[in-house]
Amino acid sequence: MLVVQKYGGTSVADVDRIRNVAKRVISYREKGDKVVVVLSAMAGETDKLLNLAYSIDKFPDEREVDVLISTGEQVSSALLAIMLKNMLCDAVSMQGHQVRIVTDSSYTKARIATIEKDRLAAELDKGRVVVVSGFQGIDEKGDITTLGRGGSDTTAVALAAALQADICEIYTDVDGVYTTDPSVCHKARRLDKISYDEMLEMASLGAKVLQIRSVELAKKYNVPILVKTSFGDGPGTLVCKEGATMSMEKVVIAGVTYNKNEAKIVVRKVPDKPGMAAKIFTALSDAKIVVDVIVQNVSKKDKTDITFTVSRTDAKKAYKIMEEMAKKIGAAGVSIDEDIAKVSIVGSGMISHAGIASKMFAVLADEGINIKAITTSEIKLSCVVESKYGQLAVQSLHKAFGLDKEEIKEEM
Amino acid sequence: MLVVQKYGGTSVADVDRIRNVAKRVISYREKGDKVVVVLSAMAGETDKLLNLAYSIDKFPDEREVDVLISTGEQVSSALLAIMLKNMLCDAVSMQGHQVRIVTDSSYTKARIATIEKDRLAAELDKGRVVVVSGFQGIDEKGDITTLGRGGSDTTAVALAAALQADICEIYTDVDGVYTTDPSVCHKARRLDKISYDEMLEMASLGAKVLQIRSVELAKKYNVPILVKTSFGDGPGTLVCKEGATMSMEKVVIAGVTYNKNEAKIVVRKVPDKPGMAAKIFTALSDAKIVVDVIVQNVSKKDKTDITFTVSRTDAKKAYKIMEEMAKKIGAAGVSIDEDIAKVSIVGSGMISHAGIASKMFAVLADEGINIKAITTSEIKLSCVVESKYGQLAVQSLHKAFGLDKEEIKEEM
Repeated sequence: MLVVQKYGGTSVADVDRIRNVAKRVISYREKGDKVVVVLSAMAGETDKLLNLAYSIDKFPDEREVDVLISTGEQVSSALLAIMLKNMLCDAVSMQGHQVRIVTDSSYTKARIATIEKDRLAAELDKGRVVVVSGFQGIDEKGDITTLGRGGSDTTAVALAAALQADICEIYTDVDGVYTTDPSVCHKARRLDKISYDEMLEMASLGAKVLQIRSVELAKKYNVPILVKTSFGDGPGTLVCKEGATMSMEKVVIAGVTYNKNEAKIVVRKVPDKPGMAAKIFTALSDAKIVVDVIVQNVSKKDKTDITFTVSRTDAKKAYKIMEEMAKKIGAAGVSIDEDIAKVSIVGSGMISHAGIASKMFAVLADEGINIKAITTSEIKLSCVVESKYGQLAVQSLHKAFGLDKEEIKEEM
Repeated sequence: MLVVQKYGGTSVADVDRIRNVAKRVISYREKGDKVVVVLSAMAGETDKLLNLAYSIDKFPDEREVDVLISTGEQVSSALLAIMLKNMLCDAVSMQGHQVRIVTDSSYTKARIATIEKDRLAAELDKGRVVVVSGFQGIDEKGDITTLGRGGSDTTAVALAAALQADICEIYTDVDGVYTTDPSVCHKARRLDKISYDEMLEMASLGAKVLQIRSVELAKKYNVPILVKTSFGDGPGTLVCKEGATMSMEKVVIAGVTYNKNEAKIVVRKVPDKPGMAAKIFTALSDAKIVVDVIVQNVSKKDKTDITFTVSRTDAKKAYKIMEEMAKKIGAAGVSIDEDIAKVSIVGSGMISHAGIASKMFAVLADEGINIKAITTSEIKLSCVVESKYGQLAVQSLHKAFGLDKEEIKEEM
């Protein structure tokens, strides 16, 4: 087997934890596997370096920020290689410019273009563990780049794709992907398997286990990802494509997600003619405000209400922009509601199952929870509710869709 | 003018000091100079990283040690580039692999083979300050290497040589090269100029201002080095070849150096036949013991005494090896004297001046100081004396050779 293992910052936070990583790597080598290890910076290091940069400049030069913060991963890769050699396991560290992980030149958020696998493969063939610094690459000019927060996940999946690895294991401080946030619903259950699409919806909605780009990449190249804890031997969660090995039929819904950091803005009685929505959302995008849910209600008498949510930190700014916009386009007014939560159910099975939406609405109605906005995609259904009901909504939906621990007799 | 400036660890120890470095760089740019800056790691960082490695392995893998410790310089170069851009001075950082400072593969003590100057020169032509990480390079395989302690001095001189810079300025925490150690003789005087050869003797004898390799390199490529403090505006000391601009005639001796960290060992009555010295010094070198002074006294009755000094930390080990050796080669015995100091006078003018040696011996005799061993080179004369007389010897010689502050009316 060729295995790519990625360890996050908490897994390499100190020398003792690095020793544990080395032990795990060696246990794979002893089974005869070829192992590529991808590491993040030691916990806290990236922030420490960034704070140095910010103490000089609120908006430090981004090329130089990448030069600065890529050192964090360089340090961990060297330390693990030293540890492995100390434990008599042949190993070699490689930086982005040594592997040649070539990216575009979008400093601090670069995207991988190509990975040269020849030197990597040659080192593996010599029986060495190759320890690659995550998060970093190099552009065509030879400048150092980084892939953005969580970028080491993407490095790992990209390497796994390039090397056609059998599996990409992501070691983190949680033991897998859960049906919902265990802090919101104590009956949350670890999933044995989840599809790429479901994981994409779960990740973007707040189940922050994997960087979303890494899941997109894994889907594109069909790289199976196993999310595991580095602090034990749990089986973890396999993120893979839907297929024969998955019995998705029994459970239609994979998880329930919850986001209480949004605010809802309604622009009332917008004239119902072409170009209105474009004006509104261009103004927001010009102000660098990211819009999440967008709902345009049925129009009445040539007027329509446009509802959207933004992150709570952008709410005041978005509200002001909309007040001006309302005057300009002849809308009746703007209202803001910061007291909301967004609750979503995610599941690839949804699309082929009738009655999922009506069941969700019924569950919420039974609890006396009023729905303020609804959006749907093929595998996700989101409802905006009053924030005080958010947690209750998650718990009720989790139970109603058969996700609670007690009700599951066998694994999915 | 094309100027290469190197700043040591204390000059970039924190953000405020990095700001001062940026101010100085900008003042040169405003005069129209092209500037290349070479930086060390922030003070203490290299040791911090090394201690991490040593906490894993007493003898950590050297390739990986270089990967690890080269990050210190990468951090400082990025921070200075961020600072310069914040102060509206266009700048770009470059690592060893980006400049392509190509070295051999002797990890932790690599030697520079070639420097590609094209990208560097292109950046300078764009009006940018180029901030190069000192101490690091890359070998033919693309592995990261480092040049050994003080290696940033060598980086700076090598860049100055490659770019044919007008001057290489080395900023440090002292304001120049002194005639002797000011803590031993308070009348020590800063030299305005010193020749490469004198500086080589001064550096190796304990005036630890410049890495000795950087001086060798500067001599080879005739790069003028100006040693200055980064904490003020002193004129510093120019290290250059002897020539028309130097009036070396007036002062024959450039400085007096002092080393009290050696021990003297005498192997007595060694049979005076070929191969004896080779046997003795091969045994020491096999034990990785570095020998400094070697004196073979005139032989009497086919027997000769061989005297040498080693660092005090190696003294016990060297003594034991010599005891065995004495038996093997039929010498009479071995004696050790740890209570010594080595005092030397250095000066390019010595060779053409009669009477320097006799004057030195007379000065010491006048103070009642007995000389235990003498060695000479073309520009250096060293005497081993009892350690309690070391400081007195330095002060007396400093005065006798006209180096005291008060006696100098005009600069050399």
